[in-house]
Amino acid sequence: MVKYPQGVSPFVNQADEKNWSQMQQPAKHRHRRGVDFSDRGMTLEQQLNESNKYYLAKGLAVVHKKPTPVQIVKVDYPKRSRAVIREAYFRQASTTDYNGVYRGYYLDFEAKETRNKSCFPLKNFHPHQISHLQACLEQDGICFTVLKFVTLERYFIVPASIVIAAWKNPDHSSISLEEIISSSIELQCGYRPPLPYLDAVDRLIEGRK
Amino acid sequence: MVKYPQGVSPFVNQADEKNWSQMQQPAKHRHRRGVDFSDRGMTLEQQLNESNKYYLAKGLAVVHKKPTPVQIVKVDYPKRSRAVIREAYFRQASTTDYNGVYRGYYLDFEAKETRNKSCFPLKNFHPHQISHLQACLEQDGICFTVLKFVTLERYFIVPASIVIAAWKNPDHSSISLEEIISSSIELQCGYRPPLPYLDAVDRLIEGRK
Repeated sequence: MVKYPQGVSPFVNQADEKNWSQMQQPAKHRHRRGVDFSDRGMTLEQQLNESNKYYLAKGLAVVHKKPTPVQIVKVDYPKRSRAVIREAYFRQASTTDYNGVYRGYYLDFEAKETRNKSCFPLKNFHPHQISHLQACLEQDGICFTVLKFVTLERYFIVPASIVIAAWKNPDHSSISLEEIISSSIELQCGYRPPLPYLDAVDRLIEGRK
Repeated sequence: MVKYPQGVSPFVNQADEKNWSQMQQPAKHRHRRGVDFSDRGMTLEQQLNESNKYYLAKGLAVVHKKPTPVQIVKVDYPKRSRAVIREAYFRQASTTDYNGVYRGYYLDFEAKETRNKSCFPLKNFHPHQISHLQACLEQDGICFTVLKFVTLERYFIVPASIVIAAWKNPDHSSISLEEIISSSIELQCGYRPPLPYLDAVDRLIEGRK
């Protein structure tokens, strides 16, 4: 039997994910004086995790972030204590970060942030993410990217088809903000949920009919 | 940028999962003389992973096993080398092991093995797996358990509703083989895919209409 850290509920795992992703990222300005910021200093991942928690609690959707894939090499099993992983390596995920179910529909999406103000560079995508989105689209999944222009504080639900088409165009190394505005659904930050992306998903589903 | 082990394709990660799950499990008889065994010594997880690879390659479904959730505490970043996780702990997953999309349907399932010959003990389920299956059912997902009676070499697709009902019945500590036979779909092992579970999923979808 695998033992878990004492005093830590194994079910509240998103907090750990959050702390870990903050450790990995370079320090950012988290408080800016005189600026009205509606995202309240949360990273996109935190906003999505909070939104997913809200949607789950309200019975509206079941969407989870997948755990970071890790290749485990060495584990210690100390007596009277929980197993400790002593050597492991990060692996590249073979899928996108988020998936789940909403009103019978399969949702699959990736979350991306850019500090660029005029376009979204396509180098932010790995080839396997594109092929995964393509494969899910072929199975009639609802697939998209949640894109955050950090500096502009603007959020978009970009349909996967737009990203895949741009990715396949050898002349494209990015998607311009204008293209995104015309092909995507802009999200307004909220309080509960912080990022009400299901409203945009409803429109994607409507558009497909 | 996260570096990956040299010479290891980051996209072929199921092999690693397999090796790891073998390390974790007690040694088993993997070759039995004079016994006709159609599962060719694979664990249920291996059979499912191989089946999912086959379904993905054929464009039939996109189903992946989720990575083992790990709480990372300490990471070394050696110069000129990839990051090494030096302290981490296993966490309990908040969902089931497998999910994905098939013909527009959301699939969600758990894989369970038992060496019991007459029933499936319900203690094999964690409470959070039951509540996750329940939440996914409420969103019209196709939810089930792939159950392997290891000694009998029999495989069943048990609808999640059956497991949830038995779990909620205080008089039930297990589901008998007879109940499983009458309420589930038995699978025959194959070669490609090793476990053709989509055939049973088709019947679950038909039964829902």
